[in-house]
Formats: sequence, structure tokens, C-alpha cells
Amino acid sequence: MKINQFAYALPEFSTVEKELSTLGFTKETEDTKKLFELFLEKSFPQFKSLSGVKDYLTRLLATPEKTLSEFFQEEEKLSAEIFYHVALQLLKFHVNDFLTVKDTLKTCAKCGIPVITGDFSKGEVFLNAWYQLLNTHTTKGLTFIDDLANRGFYAGKNFPKPFFFNGKSQAVFNMSETIYEVVYVESALDTDEDGKRDLLKVEIIRPKASNEIKMPVFFTASPYDQGVNPVTGDAKMHRVNVPLERKTPRDIPYEDISYKTPEINLPKERIVLGEADLPEETFNEEKVYSLNNYLLARGFIQVFASGIGSKDSDGIQTCGSKEQTESMKNIVEWLAGNRRAFTNRTDNIEVKAWWSNKRVAMGGRSYLGTLATAVATTGVKGLETIVSEAAISNWYEYYRDNGLVIAPGGFPGEDCDVLAEETFSRSLEAGDYLKNKAFFDEKQEEMKRLQDRKTGNYNTFWDERNYLPHVKNIKCDIFMVHGVNDWNVKPRHVYQLWEKLQKMPIKSKLVLHQGQHIYINNMPSVDFQDMVNLWLSNKLYAVENSANDILPPVVFQDNLKAETWEKLSTWENEDSEMKTYYVNDQGLSEEKPAGESKQTFKDSLEEEQFTAYTKNISLWEKDLKADNSPLENNRVLMKTAPLEDLFLSGAPKLSLKVASSVDFGMLSFQLVDYGKKKRLKEVPTVLGAKSLVLGYHFKSDTLQEFKEDQETPFKMITKGHINLQNRRNAYEVDDLKADEMVEISLDLQPTLYKIPQGHQLGLIIYATDFGMTVRGNQEIAYTVDLSSVTLRIPVQ
Amino acid sequence: MKINQFAYALPEFSTVEKELSTLGFTKETEDTKKLFELFLEKSFPQFKSLSGVKDYLTRLLATPEKTLSEFFQEEEKLSAEIFYHVALQLLKFHVNDFLTVKDTLKTCAKCGIPVITGDFSKGEVFLNAWYQLLNTHTTKGLTFIDDLANRGFYAGKNFPKPFFFNGKSQAVFNMSETIYEVVYVESALDTDEDGKRDLLKVEIIRPKASNEIKMPVFFTASPYDQGVNPVTGDAKMHRVNVPLERKTPRDIPYEDISYKTPEINLPKERIVLGEADLPEETFNEEKVYSLNNYLLARGFIQVFASGIGSKDSDGIQTCGSKEQTESMKNIVEWLAGNRRAFTNRTDNIEVKAWWSNKRVAMGGRSYLGTLATAVATTGVKGLETIVSEAAISNWYEYYRDNGLVIAPGGFPGEDCDVLAEETFSRSLEAGDYLKNKAFFDEKQEEMKRLQDRKTGNYNTFWDERNYLPHVKNIKCDIFMVHGVNDWNVKPRHVYQLWEKLQKMPIKSKLVLHQGQHIYINNMPSVDFQDMVNLWLSNKLYAVENSANDILPPVVFQDNLKAETWEKLSTWENEDSEMKTYYVNDQGLSEEKPAGESKQTFKDSLEEEQFTAYTKNISLWEKDLKADNSPLENNRVLMKTAPLEDLFLSGAPKLSLKVASSVDFGMLSFQLVDYGKKKRLKEVPTVLGAKSLVLGYHFKSDTLQEFKEDQETPFKMITKGHINLQNRRNAYEVDDLKADEMVEISLDLQPTLYKIPQGHQLGLIIYATDFGMTVRGNQEIAYTVDLSSVTLRIPVQ
Repeated sequence: MKINQFAYALPEFSTVEKELSTLGFTKETEDTKKLFELFLEKSFPQFKSLSGVKDYLTRLLATPEKTLSEFFQEEEKLSAEIFYHVALQLLKFHVNDFLTVKDTLKTCAKCGIPVITGDFSKGEVFLNAWYQLLNTHTTKGLTFIDDLANRGFYAGKNFPKPFFFNGKSQAVFNMSETIYEVVYVESALDTDEDGKRDLLKVEIIRPKASNEIKMPVFFTASPYDQGVNPVTGDAKMHRVNVPLERKTPRDIPYEDISYKTPEINLPKERIVLGEADLPEETFNEEKVYSLNNYLLARGFIQVFASGIGSKDSDGIQTCGSKEQTESMKNIVEWLAGNRRAFTNRTDNIEVKAWWSNKRVAMGGRSYLGTLATAVATTGVKGLETIVSEAAISNWYEYYRDNGLVIAPGGFPGEDCDVLAEETFSRSLEAGDYLKNKAFFDEKQEEMKRLQDRKTGNYNTFWDERNYLPHVKNIKCDIFMVHGVNDWNVKPRHVYQLWEKLQKMPIKSKLVLHQGQHIYINNMPSVDFQDMVNLWLSNKLYAVENSANDILPPVVFQDNLKAETWEKLSTWENEDSEMKTYYVNDQGLSEEKPAGESKQTFKDSLEEEQFTAYTKNISLWEKDLKADNSPLENNRVLMKTAPLEDLFLSGAPKLSLKVASSVDFGMLSFQLVDYGKKKRLKEVPTVLGAKSLVLGYHFKSDTLQEFKEDQETPFKMITKGHINLQNRRNAYEVDDLKADEMVEISLDLQPTLYKIPQGHQLGLIIYATDFGMTVRGNQEIAYTVDLSSVTLRIPVQ
Repeated sequence: MKINQFAYALPEFSTVEKELSTLGFTKETEDTKKLFELFLEKSFPQFKSLSGVKDYLTRLLATPEKTLSEFFQEEEKLSAEIFYHVALQLLKFHVNDFLTVKDTLKTCAKCGIPVITGDFSKGEVFLNAWYQLLNTHTTKGLTFIDDLANRGFYAGKNFPKPFFFNGKSQAVFNMSETIYEVVYVESALDTDEDGKRDLLKVEIIRPKASNEIKMPVFFTASPYDQGVNPVTGDAKMHRVNVPLERKTPRDIPYEDISYKTPEINLPKERIVLGEADLPEETFNEEKVYSLNNYLLARGFIQVFASGIGSKDSDGIQTCGSKEQTESMKNIVEWLAGNRRAFTNRTDNIEVKAWWSNKRVAMGGRSYLGTLATAVATTGVKGLETIVSEAAISNWYEYYRDNGLVIAPGGFPGEDCDVLAEETFSRSLEAGDYLKNKAFFDEKQEEMKRLQDRKTGNYNTFWDERNYLPHVKNIKCDIFMVHGVNDWNVKPRHVYQLWEKLQKMPIKSKLVLHQGQHIYINNMPSVDFQDMVNLWLSNKLYAVENSANDILPPVVFQDNLKAETWEKLSTWENEDSEMKTYYVNDQGLSEEKPAGESKQTFKDSLEEEQFTAYTKNISLWEKDLKADNSPLENNRVLMKTAPLEDLFLSGAPKLSLKVASSVDFGMLSFQLVDYGKKKRLKEVPTVLGAKSLVLGYHFKSDTLQEFKEDQETPFKMITKGHINLQNRRNAYEVDDLKADEMVEISLDLQPTLYKIPQGHQLGLIIYATDFGMTVRGNQEIAYTVDLSSVTLRIPVQ
């Protein structure tokens, strides 16, 4: 187990002394050995008597041959070796793995545990080391000070609330006194067109301490939270075994398809008939995400809302529309004191978020992070930051790409209307459904038309759902997280947002991990929750903790070594070095080809093989990349010679000339790392259920980590797709004649990828992508002009 | 979704009235429609105002065309149709699945919802229906009354504690006031031979109400709970790619190998130096199983102990030994007031379980249920019942069978010493480990010798670990649960225990499900938690709730239809009908064969194929059963003609004559259901994370259910193994000569299995079982005298 921490810095000694002393770790004696014993005695709050602690110290080792009790009874001085030998045990490293190792400091280095060296008989050295130890991660996903909290360190004591240690808010709040409330925010919308402004159900979870002190809010906007309709959603899934079709050429300026906010005749606000101090509805939370629980225990009020079209709210689901953004923005406005909420849906009794310090963050993964991003682009007052994980920044790139219908990985046939159906949780309440079904069904038909699966072109519908043009309105700082192996919400979503933010006067941070579409807060190898805590303590509690400086611009999880994360100063920028590859006799090469050469491949397959692939997409993925593959004639595969180390960092740029045997066509591309290696598994391995403990008598989560897999021969690095009739852009349609050689260029999905020495880089050109494109199994042949292929790869 | 309830019975109307009235559902008016409205208004405790409830009623339907609010405003009378239309919504059935159906009562029948018919304008009819509805399961795994509790029905009210409704203890306890305590029980053991009796750490979780009223205890004995050593455990795994060896014949009486309790020179009890009212150590629970949480919220104090050899306790791990049983029995003794515990490990201050009503249950799955069974066989005072899930009743049958080393499915190479190493959590504390490692290692070497993997014979070591001879000492009632597809702890474990219990003057219940080695408390199709609640309310709270009569002797989950559970009166007994099959020209047949016929198969495989199977045991499982298999020459496969329906119920009995080409050998057998069918998946499908809500602001669990799989051509029904030198029993060794025809007979693993009409029953005879036996890949040929094969199958 190796720990990687990014949210920690050792402060000035005066700060160290002050913070330790607030915790009760005061320098009562000059004898550091005695002090070590005194501090340890305070570190096992589970024992209410000294006898319990003393006995516990007999169960710890000071050296491989001596218990800690024995050490305290002897003359021997405290040394760094002994301190860290004990530290390894306190941090829950396993006796068999580490404690038999003689060189403790080397072991610490191997485990990523920061050490203080120097003379441990000196008070300053010892106090710095103790402070650092409290801030060091155990193998259980959080710091040793969190471990103390989990064992009752703060319980029953009158600790200051909030309490910040090393710049991060601590779990001093009593979770058994948590308050659960529901209010209804009156939005600036009437999406179900019933002549009344849509009321939006809001669920609040706050520590009782917020009755006394104003506290900040972490707001999670999740259309899923009030329930989903998987059955009716699935029933709307679109057929993907349909042919690609020729599109009528069109030349239009962007202006013609750009979204313009329509004039809306909004119903009047409700008339307030009274005011209440407290809400009158409560709830029993079931589905709070574990990062939310971590934050709740540390003094960040948690607020959840599902927005328009969800159970107990008004309105309809619109899948990423302006209205959906507005509905979530309206909730921020209430939290910041700038909008009205009621105690119930009928009495018009107003209730205020008087416990809020008016500093709000939004966050979550996938659709949740997407809505956080969307609201950020409104520049709404009170929103100080967002923590967006695996978020969509442009819905066109989620369901389409370069003029093609491109499914999110794992969900062929899904589209905006399917997602709207799935999240329309008003249908879970039959009486409410009865009233709204007809209107919603009509709107669903309209959406089905506007999303236009026929052409796959970018249009006004998609422009409304593209947040990137509005990034310029963002006023808050942004913390982004994405998996470089996320083929559901593809890496381009975060890349384009990140790229735009670099040019803006706001702070942004980015964490790129090796996961697919997952949360990473429960990986013990990285201090993700600390990073978020440091960030939010700064943005929401306005603590001067140097969060902007301490957190690196980019944190990247290494793809070659498990449990290894590193700081990067950037992803890709104008200064990025580019490596250019061409195709010559030897395959992919940095040398330009001498003469012309062409290769033709067909798209169609025998019926049986075609059907087998539609049912087993992983088999298709494997065959596509394999040498001696049944898909030999359905692809062009080129490889480089074995390479030196290469760190690909950004979006590979590809251009080439191609002809289709018919008057329409599409191409797909994969960049592949060829070379036998034990790579990281695609899915993290569970280390222990409930092992990530988030507070004292509170919640927990599973701990998990990416482990090394068995040896594999290759791994896809990135991919891309293009409609041969969208050579200029996604909204204008080019003509194409059968057998006409045309030039295309596109960016593949951006990524970060270390290709180890001796491996080969491969480029595969093909057409039907069984996991993402339509699958017409059409008789089309594509001829690639190999001498035209230019692949430019940004490297670090 | 179909609900199957076994723990419910409609009582006398006077009881119905009384129980409803305690809940506040009193018959305030003769107008049942008004009463329905009044009751509904009390059923949404999440709303503190009537406005909230009234508004909610607009979101429920009374008929497919009319909301409940509208109905209440109209003249129309309350009918069964309307009542159950609302009921379906309250029980969370989905609008799209059911509410469009016109015939509500038919829908209820389809969903397994019990209905009261009759005139709903009559008070008695309505009250009975409301009572029954409160006791009916929602689609979320518990009853509607539990759903009310989850929404705060009891919160802040001064409800009687405990409170029983329909004979089951309700979630009236305030979980935010839970007390967590640790004590150290002084055992009657000194397994680490340090001259002091082993102290055993005990963790207690109890509702605060237990300060006022004495409450019963549910004790979970789990060697895993204080941590495990997977790395060192795995390192001790035994090689299984080793040859089977010839054994020297031996004739000995059982008496010679039977276990006799040795004389022990036990150190004296500690001298008590004082008494404390309360323990002085607390803990932050992390890993409580969800059935425990369900019970805790319902007034059953939860106690956990890992016993000898676990972290913070004394002693060593012994894997199922008499000492391990004694250590867990000692904890029951303390809970029943018959043994001493201390506040810590050094001060000798006694602390009593004064909150205990001295009625204790034990329970848990696998090793946990095993130890519950083991303690039950001691007849210890205070133990009123056990709920044993997937429990071992005889360790020989867990790691051995009929003179062979037979691995638990999924764990080839595991044995007692491996499990002892894995659970020796004292090694997690380095200082403690330092003191005990040498002694434990020595004992591990001894265990390695005594468990005797060389012969696989039953011996004194295994006799000590066989609980079956001691079943006669059991004094408590027993609730057993097992998966018929559990090839880890195989079904014979529960079968042999159940069989012996049928002849004893105690009550026993059995639930057989379609799972492997799993918990079933989170399956919404069955009211398992209610059954346990009814049982424990009777055994531990001594509530006269007819639990013994209401719960069927055997509950069986159907293997042919999802979400279908049925009552059986028995499993297999002396009266069971037997179907006998022989082998003739047509294959397996009820007709005896006319003449002799033999078939020879070999055990060895080409090296490459052998290696492939060792790495992919599912592939081997598939090939073994397949027609046209690469294993054609490594098995004898016989099938019946297509059958009529057949309900196999018990242990198939097989006898045959066989010769080995060498002077030792083994045979394995599988009984297989041949026929294309969509069978249930092997692993339950997750329906929703955290969807099983166990209390108000308390814990939750995942809901899961067995779903239909894609069509498969066959499924193994059961299997068995025998060493050809253990023809009499597992401890005596028979001679065997090369090519000598010998007669063997054995029982295959017992099971329950419905073979549908038209399917064929298959019997496969083979030798090496890649998942369970040693794998020597030896040049051995076996000749089966087909005319001698007799297969007797118990049927229901």
C-alpha cells in the first residue's frame, strides 16, 4: 500500500504548536519521549481509563524486538526510527508487510509516508513529526486525525465548531443530532405549463450546530435522487442496428442554429401568506453519496434536489436544457438568500435558509456534476465553487460526435429522450402522473424529433445543451475530476472545460484518474477527500489555507504503476511538444513515406459474426485490436517500431484522405498501446466493505483500489469517430461522391497515457464501432490513402 | 415483483382492534371511508402538517382515473377495489407495471399481496384489511409498518418499548441513542498456554432503552470481525496439483479415533478487585451485518466476539476445535449471568451484563453460523435459539469427503491451518504478535500434521470438529438457512443437522434458497427478516405469537420461477418415495438392464488442456457436462429419456461396481438437469444500493433478487466424491488391487430440485474434480460396470 497526499503542507512551527495545543497536544515537558507517551495516551479515546491505554501500548512495537511499553520503561531515547516504527502501526500498515523490515525510514518512503528527520529529543522536531503524523493517511482512506475522530476523540468535548486542522475542517460535529428537512423552492419556471411556477423539492441535512452558527452548503443536484423509471426508460431505447444514411449537403452559418433564449410568459410568483422559522416536512435519507457524508460530518450542510420533473416537484424532465439549469440555479439562489421557498406545496408559508452562510458549492458525478457545471456557467451569486466529477460539458459530445450518433460507452441506443423518461420520477406517484402524462408524452415526442438521430448533426437543440460557449460567464473556482478510461462521459468533456478555464480569471484544479465512470473518494492511495476538504474550507469557510497553492494544477494517476499519483503543471497547451507520425513501409513512423499507397477495408460482416459482436461487444473490442484477427479485412492496422518511453498528454490530431464506395460514410479510429504487460485492472478491486469510516457512529463506505491485472497484449489508449459528410464541422453537411477521395481531420479523445519503453503504438482505422455507432452491417468499402495519414501526438 | 410472506397470520378481530389502537389507528367513526382517510393522514409522519398529507393524497390514485383526494370528496363508497388500488401504491408497486391494470384484486394476487374481500363499508372488514396492509411487504424488503417506522412514525412519541405488532418486535427504539461498549470475558481456557485464562474481547451494541428494561441478546460469534490476514493465509494454501496416493489398508473401530476431552490443568480464575456499573471502553462499529442492524432497531441487543486468537483477546486460532466452541459458550455464559467479565485486561474490575434478560440467541452465516451450531451442541444455559445460515456441522465434510481431500468450492488448497492463519488477528497488533508468534507457529505445524492431507481419512482431529455426534445435547430451538447451490459449505451440512433435529424434542425451522454462499435477508420476494423477528420475539421475548405454528417446517425457494417460495412439510424422511434408475441400452432408465456392459474412461489429460482447466474451472465445469465435449473420454455420461415433472428432495443414493487400473483411485459424480431453459442466475441481481431501509435515520442495505438468466443447456443438480479405498467409511481403509472390480455406494449431496417436464436427468461419472479434488493428472483408467449402477432418488 502506497499513500499519495497532495492536500498537506507543514506550516510554520508556531502554527503547528497552536493547532496541536487546541487538540490537547501541548508541550507539557521538554522530554520528548515522555511527550510521545503523553500524546499516545490521548490518542486512544476508545479507552476511558488509563489502564486500557497502557495495556494497548504493550500491543505496539517500538522496534522489531521490543514493545512500546518496554521502550517507555527503559532509558533509550526517542529516535526517528522508533517514532516511525510506531507510526507505521498507528497508520495500520500490516505487521507482516512492514514491521519485520529493519529500515523503518526506507519503509516509510516506500509507503509514501512523509518523515521528519533530525534529533527527536528536540521538541520542535518531535512536535513537527507528531503534527505531520496526525495529517498522514492511514491505510484506511483518511488521516490519522480522522482515525482519532472515528474513535471518539471529539465526542463529549466542547470543541470549537467548525475546527480547522492543517487548513481542513474536522469531524467535530455530533452526527447523532443531525437535522433532516424538506422545503419547496419556487422556481422561475413553469415547464409543465400549468400556469403556476414550478415548485422544487429540496432536502436538507444539517448538523445541529447550524442552529447556532451559520454554515456553508454543498448542494448536489441529482435528477436520479427521487427515483428512476428503468423499465419505461429502457423501452424507449433506440434501435442501433440501423443503416447509416446519406445526408443532404447544407451550408449554414452557426448563427442559424445557435440557441436563443425565447421570450417566456412566466406565471406570477405565489403570494406569501406567512413565514415559518422551520420547515414542517422531514425525510429519512437513504442514498447519500459517501463524499457527501464525509463533508457533512465536517460541517458542510448537504442539500439535495432533483429539479423539474422529479417526484414531489413540478415540471418535466428536459435532459440538460436551459430550464433544468435554471431549476438548479434557483435552489442556489434560495440557499444564498435570493429566492423564496415554502414549507409545503399548498399553504404559501415561506421558510428561509437562515442557517446558510450564503456560500454554496455544487458537486457530484456524471449528471450531478453536469448540472453543477451548467449552473456554474450562469455565474449565479452565492456559488463559490463546484466539484464536478465525470461531468458532461456538452451534451452533443455525449450522444453525438462529428455528425454521427455516438453512444456513451455501455449504453447503445440511449439518447436525451430516454434519459428524460428514465428520470421523470413524477411518474412514480400515480396521481401526479395521471395529471402530467399527456403533456410529458407530447414533449417527449418533440424531443425525439429535435434530437435528430437521423442526421446526427449539431443543431439548436444541442446548442441549448452545450455549456462550453457559456464558460466565459463562470465566476466561481472549479475542481474537476475525470477518469481517463471513462468512455461513458468521455474525457473530452473535462478537457474542453479545463482548456477554456485556463484562460479565465478563476482558479481551477483537475484530477485525472485511471477509472472509468466512477467515484474515487474511496481509494486509499490518494487523499482525494482531503483535497476537496482543503478546497472547500477555503472557498466556503474562507479559511486562509493556501488551497490554491497547495493543490497542484493537475493530479494524474499513473497508468503504469498501481497506487501512484503525480503532480503535473498542465495537460496540453500551446507549448506542448508534438510528435508526428506518418505511414510508410514500416508502418507508423516519424519518417514521411516515399510514395503513394492505399488500403481498402470493408465494413460488412457475415451475419453470424455480426450478430455475435452485437451481443458481445468486448469480444469485438478484442478482435478489432488483435493480430491475426477475424476482422483483418475490416480495419487498417498500423504500428510503430518499439518505442522509447512516451507520455501522451492531450488530444491526438489525425488527418488523412479516404474514399467511400458509396456516397456517404463514417470512420472510427483507435490508438492502441501494443506490448505484453500487467496493466491496471479496468475496475477497482474491493479492499473492504465499510472500511472507509467517515465519522464517529456515522457512515462508512467500501475501500477500493486499482490493482494489477494479469498480463494483456494491448490496451486502447483513445478513440474517435467522424461522419465523412461532416468534414468542416458538426452542423454543416458536405457532399460526398462514391469513390471520391476526401480529406478529413479530427481530434481523437484527449487523454494522458504513459507508453512504456519497448511497446508499440498502433493506429486502427475502421468504420462500425459496435459499442458506439449505428450498426447497419452495410456493404461499404473504404479506401484509405495511407501516404496521407498524419498523426500528431502531444507529449509531456 | 412478487411477495411471499410466511411470518404473518391474521389474528382474532379483538387482537386486530387492540393492536391497531395502540398504533393510534382507532375506530373513531363507523364511516369506513372517513376512517380510511383518517388512517392515511396518520401514515405519512414525514409531514408535520395536515397540508402536507392532504397534498400528498392528490398524488395517489383511487382508481386509474381518479385521485384519492377526489375520491374522498365524492359520494362513492370505499370498496375492496379502491382500497387495494391505493394499497398497491403504498406498497411501492410501480404505476407502469400495475396501476393501469383494471382488475386490482387480480393484480394483488399476481403480486402475492393478501387481500381481504367483503363489504368495505363494514368496520371489521376495513380494520382487518388495514391491519393486514400494515403487515404486508412493500417492494422494498420490509412491511408497510416498517415503512411507517422508516419515515418517523415512532419518533418523538412515547411508545411502549418493546412493542409487538402481529407478534413481531417493532422498530420503536431511538437509534441515535445507541450505546457501544467493550468488555473482556474471562474464559475457561488457556489456549496460548501463558498460565492465565484467556480474556475474550466482547463488543456490545444496545439501545439506550436497555438502561431501563432488560432486553434479550443476539450474539454473533465471528472469528473474522477483528480483522483477517489474507496475505499470510493465502501463503499457507496447499498445493492441489499433487497426485492421489495409495493408502495402507487399516481396520479400526471408531472408538480408536474418537475424540476424548483431555484433562486440562486450567489456571485459576483472576481475583476480582472491584466492580463497575459500566464498561470503560467503547468502539466505533464498522462491520455489522444487516440482519443484526434490523434486529438492533427492534430491541435485540447485538453482541459480537471473535473468540480465542483474535485481536485484543488472548489465545490462538484453532479452527473449529472444542476450545473455540468453549470460548464462544463462555460469552453466552456471561450474557446469561453465569460468568465473569472485566472492564479491561489488567485491572480485574468486574462488570455485569445487567441489561440482559438472560435470554440469548446466536446467529450468522458460514463460520459465524458454524460457531452458533457448535455452542448449541453444548446445551449451554441461556441460549434459547440459534439462527444458523450456511453453517458447517462437521468440518470433515467441509475440507474432506469419503476419504478424499475435497475443497470447499472456490477455495482449492484451503484447509484448517489456512483458515486459522487467516483469522489469527492477534498478529494485526505487532507487539502482541511478537509474544505469541512462536507458540502459534508451533501449533500451526501440529495442526498441519493432524489434519492429514496425505490420506484424507477421518481421524481424531476431525472427530473433535464434528458437531453432529453432540446434536443430542442441544436444548434450544433452531432456525436453519442454507443455499441449495452452496458448494462452499455444501448442503449436507444443514441436511445432517436438520435430519437429527427432527428426532429431538426441540422446535426447528429450515429455509432453503437458490443462492450459493450468501445472506438472504435483503431479498424483497421473501419475508425472511419477519420470520427471524417472529421466531426471536417468541424465543427471546417469550411473546406468545404462535411462531412455532405459523412458520412452516421448511420454506423452499423454487428453482423454476423467480420470486417464488413455498411451504414444505419436510425435506427427506423414512416415508420419502424413491425413484430408482438403472443403466440400460437407452441410458438411465427405471428398467433394469438385461445383460452386462462396461465402460472405461481415463483420468489424465494432455498437459495443455490440463493447465487450461486448472486456470479456468468454469470452463472445465461446462465441458464436463457438454455433449460433444473434449472430455468425452474422461467421463461416463448417461441420460434418461425426457421426464415428467420430478421434484428431487433429499440425498440421491448411488451404488455401482468399478475397477481402477492402479491399486488406488477415486470417483466423482454429478447429477445434471439437461434441457434448454432460462434458469435463475447463479448470483442475485442488485435492485438498488441502500434500498433496504432498516430504521429511521439508521442503516440500510442493498436489495437484491435472483433474476432469470439467458437460456442454458444444463445445470448441475448435485455432486459427490469417494476414495475407492474408503468403501466402508471415512476412517477405515480398504485394500484395492489394480483392475479389481469393487462395489461402492455413497450418498450424493442432498438438495431440492424441480426438474421440469421434458428435461432429461443425467449422471456423470468421472475422477478428478478440478474445483475440489487433488489434480494429479495421473495415468489412471477406471472401468465402470454399467449394469451395476443403481441410482435412488428421493422425490416429493
